[in-house]
Amino acid sequence: MSGSGTRYADWIAVDWGTSHLRAWAMRDGAPTAEATSDRGMGRLGSADFEPALLDLVEPWLEQDRTTVVACGMVGSRQGWAEAPYAQVPARPSSDRLTRPATHDMRLSVHILPGLKQDSPADVMRGEETQIAGYLTANPDFDGVVCLPGTHTKWAQVSAGEVVSFRTFMTGEIFSLLARQSVLRHSIGDGWDDAAFAEAVDQTISRPETLATRLFSIRAEALLHDSGPASARARLSGTLIGAELAGSRPYWLGQRIVLIGEAGLSAHYARALSLQGLDAQVIDATDATLAGLTAAWRMLEEALT
Amino acid sequence: MSGSGTRYADWIAVDWGTSHLRAWAMRDGAPTAEATSDRGMGRLGSADFEPALLDLVEPWLEQDRTTVVACGMVGSRQGWAEAPYAQVPARPSSDRLTRPATHDMRLSVHILPGLKQDSPADVMRGEETQIAGYLTANPDFDGVVCLPGTHTKWAQVSAGEVVSFRTFMTGEIFSLLARQSVLRHSIGDGWDDAAFAEAVDQTISRPETLATRLFSIRAEALLHDSGPASARARLSGTLIGAELAGSRPYWLGQRIVLIGEAGLSAHYARALSLQGLDAQVIDATDATLAGLTAAWRMLEEALT
Repeated sequence: MSGSGTRYADWIAVDWGTSHLRAWAMRDGAPTAEATSDRGMGRLGSADFEPALLDLVEPWLEQDRTTVVACGMVGSRQGWAEAPYAQVPARPSSDRLTRPATHDMRLSVHILPGLKQDSPADVMRGEETQIAGYLTANPDFDGVVCLPGTHTKWAQVSAGEVVSFRTFMTGEIFSLLARQSVLRHSIGDGWDDAAFAEAVDQTISRPETLATRLFSIRAEALLHDSGPASARARLSGTLIGAELAGSRPYWLGQRIVLIGEAGLSAHYARALSLQGLDAQVIDATDATLAGLTAAWRMLEEALT
Repeated sequence: MSGSGTRYADWIAVDWGTSHLRAWAMRDGAPTAEATSDRGMGRLGSADFEPALLDLVEPWLEQDRTTVVACGMVGSRQGWAEAPYAQVPARPSSDRLTRPATHDMRLSVHILPGLKQDSPADVMRGEETQIAGYLTANPDFDGVVCLPGTHTKWAQVSAGEVVSFRTFMTGEIFSLLARQSVLRHSIGDGWDDAAFAEAVDQTISRPETLATRLFSIRAEALLHDSGPASARARLSGTLIGAELAGSRPYWLGQRIVLIGEAGLSAHYARALSLQGLDAQVIDATDATLAGLTAAWRMLEEALT
């Protein structure tokens, strides 16, 4: 079916998280169109998934079935259909896809499983597909992949498998503190690299001080007019520093790849550089598409 | 004026925080009536303070002036009138009161100052009055006072002065994570003391793991059905453990007094007992009233 001349899309790639839905029409191995909406898994009941998807992809559909490959929270228990986790150590790409029931005959939807770890208990959905995408171009990679985001993941990767991983709620905590805590009065736009670097250094070297450094951001603003850009950078540096202190067993002496949104990855790269570490930065969308493409190819091979 | 036979209230005590307003009619050294509202400083513009107060205390007023003594965020820059901070080391009670302009001739309002610390930058408003209240009955106290709450304070007290203090955003972070983060799906009512104790122990001994232990609460619930009461206790224990790790220079080898709401103080007392420390627990309202009474007495002495 791949590359057939008259189709708009050979298949459709979907990244469906808690708060977002992104779809790409894929043709000849590359995206030819993209559509996004805010109808993430967190806002949808079980009957809402198919309409939410059709709203985005209907223009790309043909008379006959189009294969849709989706990753992310869409496969959680509260999602469209539960795609059981694979237990680490495991390859981040899987051919055990879950097919939700659909009403529209033009859709053939396949949801990728996430990964789970028994002890320490941890789960991921979506990031495994980005790791798989990175590994398609770097099959012999041995090292650690960090995926900064709302829930940042650190994954130890070896011989094509995710060996172990840990999740840090750094992005979500940053957002809650910056927007809803007392710190919101002190935090504004802009950036202050010196304040960021100082905060990373302080928290990574004395992680036990995290809990008190946070209120200092407010007090510094009240007493010493430290400014909203500095406060923002200090909050980010304090939380990323705490994450690096906790993830040290992952990154110490390892080859590090960062997969994430460019701005956030740059902060992580800067924080790691302060520890003398040079991380490779990979665009998150590229990795997602590469991972979904790898899954689609496995599916095609299985079907033909 | 004290103890005059026909007055309903000799004076009025007010605890006015960010999210609450509490007033007591005081007569012969004890409260004879109490009134509360949710019109905290955070919800009021500058013109709203006097009406909010009158709504509560009007039934207690006489023809002539009644003295009102207030502590808390009502004295902040965004409050009714800014009561400048005293710089530590300082006595927690002060006779430098701020008088906001009032329209009702029956009110004579006095706002207590907070405390500030230049480095590390820190501020408090309200807790100093509770410390002052404790010191009226324990003037020779030498040790550390912990005031658990939205923003928990640890204060080193010696020779009647607050020598230094630090603020931990533990209560606010607990509330944000329990109600608004991904952890809200796993946290419910109830308590699990064993889970609390284990979490305190883990975070206090390895504070760098705080950032990853939080998401584990979610993953444990997903993978191992750990239950909503256990999740609540683990979140509390993880955050209080992190606070104890950061406040260790305060409590190590010290006499400790806890001033706070009974349920929360009990969690702190339990966490400290796990470190082999026996804390004295003081009711927050009693301490507030004692501190406001001490301030009122100083005011009376200055006026007569």
